[in-house]
Amino acid sequence: MDTELTKNKSNRNNENKMLTFYDHVPRFLEGSDSPRAYLERCINTIIKREAEVQAFVSMNLVRARADADASTMRYAAGKPLSLVDGMPIGVKDLFETEDLPTEVGSPLFKGKCTDRDAAVVQGLREAGAIILGKTVTAEFGFYSPGPTRNPLDITRTPGGSSSGSGAAVGAGMVPVAIGTQVVGSLIRPSSFNGNFGFKPTFGAINSSGAHSNLSQSVLGMHAGSLTDAWIASFEAARFAGGDPGHPGLYGIDEPMMSTKPKALARIETAGWQKCSPEVRELFERLVKRIEEKGVNITDRFCDINVESFESSVEPALDITNDICGYEFRWPLSSYQRRGPNAISSNIAQRLERWKSIENETYRNLLQQREKIRSQHERLKDSVTALITLSATGAAPKGLEYTGDPIFAVTSSILGAPAISLPLLEVDGMPLGIQIIGYKHRDAELFGIARWIMSIFDHKV
Amino acid sequence: MDTELTKNKSNRNNENKMLTFYDHVPRFLEGSDSPRAYLERCINTIIKREAEVQAFVSMNLVRARADADASTMRYAAGKPLSLVDGMPIGVKDLFETEDLPTEVGSPLFKGKCTDRDAAVVQGLREAGAIILGKTVTAEFGFYSPGPTRNPLDITRTPGGSSSGSGAAVGAGMVPVAIGTQVVGSLIRPSSFNGNFGFKPTFGAINSSGAHSNLSQSVLGMHAGSLTDAWIASFEAARFAGGDPGHPGLYGIDEPMMSTKPKALARIETAGWQKCSPEVRELFERLVKRIEEKGVNITDRFCDINVESFESSVEPALDITNDICGYEFRWPLSSYQRRGPNAISSNIAQRLERWKSIENETYRNLLQQREKIRSQHERLKDSVTALITLSATGAAPKGLEYTGDPIFAVTSSILGAPAISLPLLEVDGMPLGIQIIGYKHRDAELFGIARWIMSIFDHKV
Repeated sequence: MDTELTKNKSNRNNENKMLTFYDHVPRFLEGSDSPRAYLERCINTIIKREAEVQAFVSMNLVRARADADASTMRYAAGKPLSLVDGMPIGVKDLFETEDLPTEVGSPLFKGKCTDRDAAVVQGLREAGAIILGKTVTAEFGFYSPGPTRNPLDITRTPGGSSSGSGAAVGAGMVPVAIGTQVVGSLIRPSSFNGNFGFKPTFGAINSSGAHSNLSQSVLGMHAGSLTDAWIASFEAARFAGGDPGHPGLYGIDEPMMSTKPKALARIETAGWQKCSPEVRELFERLVKRIEEKGVNITDRFCDINVESFESSVEPALDITNDICGYEFRWPLSSYQRRGPNAISSNIAQRLERWKSIENETYRNLLQQREKIRSQHERLKDSVTALITLSATGAAPKGLEYTGDPIFAVTSSILGAPAISLPLLEVDGMPLGIQIIGYKHRDAELFGIARWIMSIFDHKV
Repeated sequence: MDTELTKNKSNRNNENKMLTFYDHVPRFLEGSDSPRAYLERCINTIIKREAEVQAFVSMNLVRARADADASTMRYAAGKPLSLVDGMPIGVKDLFETEDLPTEVGSPLFKGKCTDRDAAVVQGLREAGAIILGKTVTAEFGFYSPGPTRNPLDITRTPGGSSSGSGAAVGAGMVPVAIGTQVVGSLIRPSSFNGNFGFKPTFGAINSSGAHSNLSQSVLGMHAGSLTDAWIASFEAARFAGGDPGHPGLYGIDEPMMSTKPKALARIETAGWQKCSPEVRELFERLVKRIEEKGVNITDRFCDINVESFESSVEPALDITNDICGYEFRWPLSSYQRRGPNAISSNIAQRLERWKSIENETYRNLLQQREKIRSQHERLKDSVTALITLSATGAAPKGLEYTGDPIFAVTSSILGAPAISLPLLEVDGMPLGIQIIGYKHRDAELFGIARWIMSIFDHKV
């Protein structure tokens, strides 16, 4: 097993650096480059790779080019609308778009148009961003994957359910793609495709107009760089707000400054037992490197509060699956009535069990989730952020299984912000490390992420 | 002005008693009546009154009759599915239905089918209820009203935005109709049509699959009787759950027992200044009657906590309008792009202002709402429930203006359960009184409502 700390993603990082949208803005303003030219480079990459990667369900190149031209004019006039004016963006096909069908990874929605934009799409268009196309999602954003392949090794899964968004960014087709996470759909594919993945605080970016209304559904970003992940998230929330009733994403409209964390808690969770000795060793080396830079590293063995948290979060995946399964009975039961093959057997089987979850059981599960969140909040005084893996290893071979969400589920159940950083390598494939912050402190987490990247000599 | 306490709605109450679904169940079981026969009586009333009332947008009588026959068979076998097996229900046309279009009161959605049931519709069908048709809503559930007239006086508004649901129940066309409330859309039309209106704790009944995702949107019931309001709500929540992440509606599957409250706080709010002396006098007489039955009545003049609450809730309507306006920019901005007449000028004008609300302002408004809620929670120890009016007076003449939501907004901003009871009469028209309880104590509030009705000699 080839396990190394920085080798191949430093190559990959150079690739992505070429794509980092934010770095191009000065050139757009001075006229040596333009959003239209940037878009054409993205389209060229799509032409080269899409046949084998299959990241997109549909694209609107005519509109994308027209919107890029309009953006080019705004830069020429010195008046871009926002930090993402002209940024080409892929949108997970759970989100409605006025110009393209929203097919939700299901044959039931083949060709279905709703003639309106989801809130985030509407907001990003207002900010001047370019909606290039819809990216493949697993059926209803859950299990049964689409045709997408991992761009770094097409015999492997790109992860799910934001398969297309993860792969499109991993292949360098777009600098940023929108995803969602309920269990592990942002952090896991980010890890498998070597991307930066950002799962914000629950509700921080408006997810209205998406086929995704579970109580852990959160809208986030796959990006080729930390900077683009931040500016896309910030501008999306600035123009679209947060989910109704939520304060949205706090922060400023520029890339976060690097911030050295005081103390990180090294978290194992139920995922640790599923990792190979090589992966564990790799993670420990990375944590050691951080510790050597003067960060206090704590863990379950030396801090009783961390141990309490670890023990409370142990059943996170089971609790999450039952909470979301219960909530997902709608609309699945309604779809199921349309015919024997309306929903995949994969989901139909699960639905039978979900239907048996009692209301009282669900209430208890919500209470358990609250308890885990309280345990997490208790770490606030002594721990700046948690650090753990983003996945148990490299993207699995084959396309049927999108990989284990066991590490990603931690930030999902907490409703807390998390970022996956493409810092490790296993089997010649990327593996992410995950840092998890506290609710509404997303910006602070970006600062920590930036600092961590800096000690591994990465341009972020 | 003809202002009386019990006269005409006691007649009306007899009418509604004939319709009370729950009272028919023993006859369904013994075979002297049937859900099919009950449905036909509803249809007969519709045939008689619909031409002038115009409560429905669409109906599916073929399916309703088939479903009623299936229900009749279940009763004959002694195996009804729930307390609402066979209950004909009208559904506000914001909620999706697999068999009928969901037109949202907007020409943009004319004839639009989504081929799926909203969560509450799916749940009620599973409980054996009969979805009779879709009821008229104001445009997008907001301002511009549809053609519906008040069944008690067709020169008057039925209120909005749940105009059709309020009128359908008021006309005796259905025992129960589903509505929603963001500002005043359940409590106000209930008052105007002489119905019982129930606005549950925020999130208590699953509103997924409705064009209504604002942070105060709540699904509730218009009903001809308190008993039917409860059983329809309880079974809806039992089969459909609450909104994702919410515990749903607490209670039991039978009509609540009458419970005499220990203390009620007589609440004025900003609405009091808008009431005529006659209406105030009428309300004071009613409160006096309750006091004479041994309930401790407190108010802003004799309880400093009530005064604090009154003063915090004073700007409730402005805060609500700005919160919901900000949240409603999506999907309105997306609709607006479709053409100059895509949305009414009424809404378009408001949208311009809503677009100018800053994210920071919205965050402050959310904090103000939280403060009002805290002030309310502080009354818990000394006050069993709040009592106030449901509207400033009778339904206004004309159809253009759906009436002032100033009294209804109190329970909306609190997220607390509220019930409108048709106990007063002004100008020969009904006027409701509103009782407001505490979050998740909806069942307790039904007990209090039942007790209040009992002292006015009403069968509930």
